[in-house]
Amino acid sequence: MYFYKNQFLPKNDIHISPDDRGYYFGDGIYEVFRVYQGTLYEQEAHMQRLQRSASEVRIELPYTIDKIGEILTELIHKNALVEGTVYVQITRGEAPRAHPFPAHAEPVLLAYCTTVPRPVAAMQQGIQAITLADIRWLRCDLKTLNLLPNTMAKQAALDHGVQEVVLHRDGIVTECSASNIMMIKDNVLYTHPANHLILHGITRAVVLRLAQSLEMNVKEQAFTTEQLLLADEVFITGTTVEITPILQIDGKRIANGSPGPLTQTLQREFERTFA
Amino acid sequence: MYFYKNQFLPKNDIHISPDDRGYYFGDGIYEVFRVYQGTLYEQEAHMQRLQRSASEVRIELPYTIDKIGEILTELIHKNALVEGTVYVQITRGEAPRAHPFPAHAEPVLLAYCTTVPRPVAAMQQGIQAITLADIRWLRCDLKTLNLLPNTMAKQAALDHGVQEVVLHRDGIVTECSASNIMMIKDNVLYTHPANHLILHGITRAVVLRLAQSLEMNVKEQAFTTEQLLLADEVFITGTTVEITPILQIDGKRIANGSPGPLTQTLQREFERTFA
Repeated sequence: MYFYKNQFLPKNDIHISPDDRGYYFGDGIYEVFRVYQGTLYEQEAHMQRLQRSASEVRIELPYTIDKIGEILTELIHKNALVEGTVYVQITRGEAPRAHPFPAHAEPVLLAYCTTVPRPVAAMQQGIQAITLADIRWLRCDLKTLNLLPNTMAKQAALDHGVQEVVLHRDGIVTECSASNIMMIKDNVLYTHPANHLILHGITRAVVLRLAQSLEMNVKEQAFTTEQLLLADEVFITGTTVEITPILQIDGKRIANGSPGPLTQTLQREFERTFA
Repeated sequence: MYFYKNQFLPKNDIHISPDDRGYYFGDGIYEVFRVYQGTLYEQEAHMQRLQRSASEVRIELPYTIDKIGEILTELIHKNALVEGTVYVQITRGEAPRAHPFPAHAEPVLLAYCTTVPRPVAAMQQGIQAITLADIRWLRCDLKTLNLLPNTMAKQAALDHGVQEVVLHRDGIVTECSASNIMMIKDNVLYTHPANHLILHGITRAVVLRLAQSLEMNVKEQAFTTEQLLLADEVFITGTTVEITPILQIDGKRIANGSPGPLTQTLQREFERTFA
């Protein structure tokens, strides 16, 4: 069961208009919520980010944040979702194709949920990555439907036989194809500052809070691909990947090639935020 | 009458799947052809660019270029289009939302045409523009459906009471929201080189050929916003705007504020390529 244009519908009954600006322009925004035990995780933070994305690209939300929360919760119940994700996107609406924002289009909200188990194996065993130039636009802080470069980056990783890409601008590491990246060096946790070049990840924020509460030294400070390769521990954070260690980058092992102790501590603490 | 998934259909009978990657990711490419006197203008150049965009983002065209040409020509006939545009887009196909390219999705081609008169008034009287930071991704040479920044730029122009934006990266002029830009200074025609930072406009190429045949001095060389304001003539080129003079930028008049003589010569010569 999906939610589309004010009603709950089976997926097959959803017919997107060719005039939906999401289709011509990728003119829309989205969020992916994690669901643990049938409940939206970090609901308020996701809603705040949704509001911010909408406001920055000037899409008016079709409902209040509270109403959207109710819709997503009902979606979870109707689908009897226990562990998974809820995807919600809002496009600017339907209008004949023309660049200017249409004066009277009504934003279109689509939402659905999917059963997604926690990535237990990847979290325990870690993943491998390659580095790749970050060619995205300069508002990566907004969760918009303009995701072609992200899909191309993810595919590049798979083509290289690894699971993820580490994106960088002129050697400065930004983030991954759909997650943030952190490294630990000499007991300091580093991650790119939350500016226009990276998504301000909800899991990223949770992990930084946990690290601080563990009295780890946290620096929101960019680092280079060279520094990354010399890190003691590297991991990515994201709504579905949670905290997943990267053990090898561009064929080079990170430290001794095993998930590090601080990464594992953070994983345990993270699990305690919802378990 | 539209063309969608192997058939000609009324627009209202077209139902895009929510799983179309064009909708979630803007994962598709497109072209806009000019139609003069019922005929596709510069058909081969547009088809080559379509092929190149498809190849670079690794979307397989669902038909041969010849077949696509036949479809578009039939579309023109079915709609009795005389003067206008044909829009064609191809998305990577339908699959549950996930970043990696789906293994078995069939690309989806959508095409339609629209009556669009030549922009006679704008070509004669010119337009005004503002300058704006170019925040797009680094493959602007590809015509993809990731057009949110272009629509935002166009809207910014309208919000400022002008028709167009001149985009620049750190002061270096790239192009406009949906057209290329050229300037003439001391009888030399300048325009940004056709690299990854601009669309390789078909009209741009025609104009450069015309300028060369008129023995004008042509330099595919970038210029700054400061140099632009001191130009003798400025104009944009594009499939629907053809050659349209910009007479004022950021409230400052270009030269004497009238369409320049070389611009007018190029307009006349351009018209001769199809009239």
